[in-house]
Amino acid sequence: MAGNSFGTVFKLTTFGESHGEALGGIIDGCPAGLTIDFKAIEAEMQRRKPGQSNIVTQRKEPDTVKFLSGIFEGVSTGSPIGFVIENTNQKSKDYSHIKDTYRPSHADYTYDQKYGVRDYRGGGRSSARETACRVAAGAIAKQLLKGVKITAYVSSVGSLEVQKPYQELDFSTIENNPVRCADPDVAIQMESLIKEIRKQGDTVGGSISCVIQHVPVGLGEPVFDKLHAQLGKAMLSINAVKGFEYGSGFAGTRLKGSEHNDLFNSDGTTKTNYSGGVQGGISNGADIYFNVAFKPVATIMQKQDTIDSKGNQVEMEGKGRHDPCVVPRAVPIVEAMAALVLADFYLLNKVSKIEHT
Amino acid sequence: MAGNSFGTVFKLTTFGESHGEALGGIIDGCPAGLTIDFKAIEAEMQRRKPGQSNIVTQRKEPDTVKFLSGIFEGVSTGSPIGFVIENTNQKSKDYSHIKDTYRPSHADYTYDQKYGVRDYRGGGRSSARETACRVAAGAIAKQLLKGVKITAYVSSVGSLEVQKPYQELDFSTIENNPVRCADPDVAIQMESLIKEIRKQGDTVGGSISCVIQHVPVGLGEPVFDKLHAQLGKAMLSINAVKGFEYGSGFAGTRLKGSEHNDLFNSDGTTKTNYSGGVQGGISNGADIYFNVAFKPVATIMQKQDTIDSKGNQVEMEGKGRHDPCVVPRAVPIVEAMAALVLADFYLLNKVSKIEHT
Amino acid sequence: MAGNSFGTVFKLTTFGESHGEALGGIIDGCPAGLTIDFKAIEAEMQRRKPGQSNIVTQRKEPDTVKFLSGIFEGVSTGSPIGFVIENTNQKSKDYSHIKDTYRPSHADYTYDQKYGVRDYRGGGRSSARETACRVAAGAIAKQLLKGVKITAYVSSVGSLEVQKPYQELDFSTIENNPVRCADPDVAIQMESLIKEIRKQGDTVGGSISCVIQHVPVGLGEPVFDKLHAQLGKAMLSINAVKGFEYGSGFAGTRLKGSEHNDLFNSDGTTKTNYSGGVQGGISNGADIYFNVAFKPVATIMQKQDTIDSKGNQVEMEGKGRHDPCVVPRAVPIVEAMAALVLADFYLLNKVSKIEHT
Amino acid sequence: MAGNSFGTVFKLTTFGESHGEALGGIIDGCPAGLTIDFKAIEAEMQRRKPGQSNIVTQRKEPDTVKFLSGIFEGVSTGSPIGFVIENTNQKSKDYSHIKDTYRPSHADYTYDQKYGVRDYRGGGRSSARETACRVAAGAIAKQLLKGVKITAYVSSVGSLEVQKPYQELDFSTIENNPVRCADPDVAIQMESLIKEIRKQGDTVGGSISCVIQHVPVGLGEPVFDKLHAQLGKAMLSINAVKGFEYGSGFAGTRLKGSEHNDLFNSDGTTKTNYSGGVQGGISNGADIYFNVAFKPVATIMQKQDTIDSKGNQVEMEGKGRHDPCVVPRAVPIVEAMAALVLADFYLLNKVSKIEHT
Repeated sequence: MAGNSFGTVFKLTTFGESHGEALGGIIDGCPAGLTIDFKAIEAEMQRRKPGQSNIVTQRKEPDTVKFLSGIFEGVSTGSPIGFVIENTNQKSKDYSHIKDTYRPSHADYTYDQKYGVRDYRGGGRSSARETACRVAAGAIAKQLLKGVKITAYVSSVGSLEVQKPYQELDFSTIENNPVRCADPDVAIQMESLIKEIRKQGDTVGGSISCVIQHVPVGLGEPVFDKLHAQLGKAMLSINAVKGFEYGSGFAGTRLKGSEHNDLFNSDGTTKTNYSGGVQGGISNGADIYFNVAFKPVATIMQKQDTIDSKGNQVEMEGKGRHDPCVVPRAVPIVEAMAALVLADFYLLNKVSKIEHT
Repeated sequence: MAGNSFGTVFKLTTFGESHGEALGGIIDGCPAGLTIDFKAIEAEMQRRKPGQSNIVTQRKEPDTVKFLSGIFEGVSTGSPIGFVIENTNQKSKDYSHIKDTYRPSHADYTYDQKYGVRDYRGGGRSSARETACRVAAGAIAKQLLKGVKITAYVSSVGSLEVQKPYQELDFSTIENNPVRCADPDVAIQMESLIKEIRKQGDTVGGSISCVIQHVPVGLGEPVFDKLHAQLGKAMLSINAVKGFEYGSGFAGTRLKGSEHNDLFNSDGTTKTNYSGGVQGGISNGADIYFNVAFKPVATIMQKQDTIDSKGNQVEMEGKGRHDPCVVPRAVPIVEAMAALVLADFYLLNKVSKIEHT
Repeated sequence: MAGNSFGTVFKLTTFGESHGEALGGIIDGCPAGLTIDFKAIEAEMQRRKPGQSNIVTQRKEPDTVKFLSGIFEGVSTGSPIGFVIENTNQKSKDYSHIKDTYRPSHADYTYDQKYGVRDYRGGGRSSARETACRVAAGAIAKQLLKGVKITAYVSSVGSLEVQKPYQELDFSTIENNPVRCADPDVAIQMESLIKEIRKQGDTVGGSISCVIQHVPVGLGEPVFDKLHAQLGKAMLSINAVKGFEYGSGFAGTRLKGSEHNDLFNSDGTTKTNYSGGVQGGISNGADIYFNVAFKPVATIMQKQDTIDSKGNQVEMEGKGRHDPCVVPRAVPIVEAMAALVLADFYLLNKVSKIEHT
Repeated sequence: MAGNSFGTVFKLTTFGESHGEALGGIIDGCPAGLTIDFKAIEAEMQRRKPGQSNIVTQRKEPDTVKFLSGIFEGVSTGSPIGFVIENTNQKSKDYSHIKDTYRPSHADYTYDQKYGVRDYRGGGRSSARETACRVAAGAIAKQLLKGVKITAYVSSVGSLEVQKPYQELDFSTIENNPVRCADPDVAIQMESLIKEIRKQGDTVGGSISCVIQHVPVGLGEPVFDKLHAQLGKAMLSINAVKGFEYGSGFAGTRLKGSEHNDLFNSDGTTKTNYSGGVQGGISNGADIYFNVAFKPVATIMQKQDTIDSKGNQVEMEGKGRHDPCVVPRAVPIVEAMAALVLADFYLLNKVSKIEHT
């Protein structure tokens, strides 16, 4: 399995299982001279961690990031930044009931088939706990991207959707509600829905929208590493994600060219932004915006028929403390992955052309 | 620009502009011993090439692939497979009117900003002509993937949609209509719509669905290089693509876990397939299916206001022979990119575990 | 700095400075199902660690490797193997005298110029302490390479050289002397020389020879990633290495083709082995052997004139506990890097050709 | 075989066999805005091509490089630069006598074992003809490295060696003699020796020295991609190379630290240069110099016993037009590979640190 690195120049490699001793990662390629804001990193970790509100899992994990290298006297040195996040809450016993069982719509079966062995404790490597490392690294990427503003928010839960375009939303309200929805009225309904779903022992899907403002022109490396292609991969690599669209997205397929084309102003900006801030795979300076679809969490607190590794039919029921809806906690993960993509392209773009001095 | 390679072990690198002397590519990592079916490659090229029906561009490009290396006596040798596709139809004069003009929703502006120079002839590197190389390489990838069946078809044009699930469609009808729609009745409507749109000098968007059958279990390299994440990147890297969803996709966000979970049969197959053949980023042997959204072609045969490179307002009108709707010709491109993704993961999976003999 | 990864499929990424909290690394791509022999890893670490004899540095570092992921119940799971090695002996005060000083023939000046900041504590990232991670990872690579035997030994210290070809040496004697020389008589002289040099407060260079036996035929990926090219890079990336030669090496330049050609036996083996087990960049099954040149350690216990970061002339003298000769402790490092190269090519070679079944 | 790319940001991928239709390559990552000097490229190709003097092979290959993309109106556009070099002189019949025979010390046996098939025509992919692509790409890399001066010359043929240090040589004389030796007196002896060897139907080894002047400080990416490690790999990947040493090299192993350390001048330059312009894997601005060992060409015009692919003993004798000594023609190849290494590190170094403006 050599798929645990992300990025070309600003590159994150991660390790760790949900119930091993620790998770962690290495950021290679962070330029030297970046003053690291540790409080900002901690703040991002807090946004992702369990137990922060009453609509998410009540597991307790402090999720403290311990940096081991690459930072000296508060400044990045150009050497790889190694970090670990300890698993302080590994109750392996919690998972003995799934040792030989394949949970429906989890990765138990596929990991077992692919690798022939399986760390059955809480999903092992396939657990979303792995995303803690992405948030830590993304927090540093954000600091590298001075001036760029990345804002994600929950735009749907089940059938409840934010109807307003992002321009009409007040992003400062996002962190004021436990759902992280940017529309306060819809947020209240979403919170009720999630509580109701939880009572049923069930889960529900949702979607996250992300807006990136003040992006420099020129980011993205066609023809394969187009900005939106790499953003799409980044999002689709997050646990439970089923879809990605940017700019006009799937709705844009219904439009005509004469409706969809973004006409220019004389300064190179455009009158509309169906392109979603990307043309030909390269940022054009307009806002980048995209949607990410998340399926309902597979672990439900209801009895389900399933099989064990021998193919016997068994009945199982979710135990432990799981999220009834993943999107509130996934908001900082979406932002982190967006930051990793942009940081890498930002650095790559420094060598796109000869600078004549 | 170092973004012109795709894949890790089975790796394609391409070059070429729409109006240069030739396009081409190198496939590195194709295993030795593969008997190459040149007729099959040519057939794929025919599906993509212009002028094949009356609803696509009437440009004439033979798009013959000339293999220069890596194949000896009809068999791959393990050495890199180099190939070129000549541009026999470069009428550079056709494009002099856009030399200093930025076409709306094209990549003219962003390329100029990023690189400081611009090959203005027909979009240069940003032209979809580049995808000819993908189709050539994908045709070889398909041959490596013996037994795997990759089928793409047009599932919407504008507001016209195929309503039937793919299981109810007869894939053998796809190539019988110029739209490459798998539902013959809808195909007729789509064809009419495209003709109507063309008469208006306009263009229209659409979407392509793709189904991959008989996929081996175990393909995909979590956590970043998940099978669907790499498929998503592959699709989003195709010109004009705005979105990607697999399995239950965006619609799945509305479901509950109890509805969405795919329960197991005793042989490890599942009763439903909301997962779209992928669990935890690894293929589970069920059908992989996904949708790809394409925006309307940006070049329209209508007058549009735009700007030149100095920021002056100018009026322009599309010339030449362009597609009123891109999806019919994009069907083989979607298949080719899917094949490249699968071929790479197929080879990578050979080293996932120790084989005890 | 994105140069902290080594390998394509079996890939090691490392982090850590000599006086940070810990060093560590991630092995991505180790196949699942490998039973890990932790004692064997510890044994390799012991061979590299300081203080093991009276001719090496007397620093005390336990160099215990703590594995954090990727191994479950003693077996590799296919997930990335994360590990840390704590720095228990960081006496940062020891290094305050070099804070603003560039030590001659160290990396102080170049790191400061390249990165604009410098972790001055004991060389920081440029310290050979980093090689502890290579030894840990190499120990796992060795376990993957069942049947392959990698043996390195000191073949020269200063002007003292082992004259016998490796075939006449008894490798079982290597660990019997603190120099790790495979010729016991020369070993005694080398030990005396190193002690004498240390008394002078000086250091001395030397070389290491390495022999790899029972290598499968077919390892190496021409044209750039030839087996010996990657071995050369691996060795040259070790601190203090100045040269690499394999097979007939530099001496082979003096020979004629008629003398140098390795004639075949009927089973494909060769009567001689000037090729050093590699032809055209691919292993041929014969013994691979090569030599690695190490310069004298730059830190000497003598007064030297040097400059500070402002360009002022200052006088400095080495402090602390340094090796008078680096080669005895570098023997396991050479073996580890060789193992990393071979493990990667071993896996890559699994997909060189189609297996007809 | 995925080993046909070299470099990270400035990346060359090559294809082609000695007797296929054409060789070629793709340079991805060349910054836009570089004015390409085609005459300079042609001049480098002339230096490598056969038939240029009476001491090299008399084969006739025009070796014209045809650029197909990435250059518009004489300037690089940032898009990949594709190029081909036609094989105008493929006389496949010449090689029918080796179809089933493994030539001693060639790659016939290892390619056949690794790939199961073999393009037997003239060595196929393992032929040094492949290096033509390296020279073409290296010529562009040289143009990117404005101000840097890369000079290689033959420093030994058999036992004849240039004794003078490079500082005492007049590099302007190198191209005045067919051997490309920088010492005119030794050059005459070398020429005689090569002619004598050729008369015997034999071949002889030699070595090339290379000096790189005016290198910017800061190139190289520790810890694995050290400047000299990548240079070493680059050189060892050239056909027939058996060894690499830089700075004090193997001779430096005999020195003491007090002799070998390069003391600083107050401007950061050093009084001596045993380090060979590289400290800790990063260029320090001093001259980089290194030696490369080449074995004698394996094809000799004498009868040799060998085996066929069935293991039968057969007698063979070299035919055709081969070099009696490879080093004169390898001089531009050494320079080209050095240029590729430096160009890549030059671009990578642009993102080593945050630029405060």
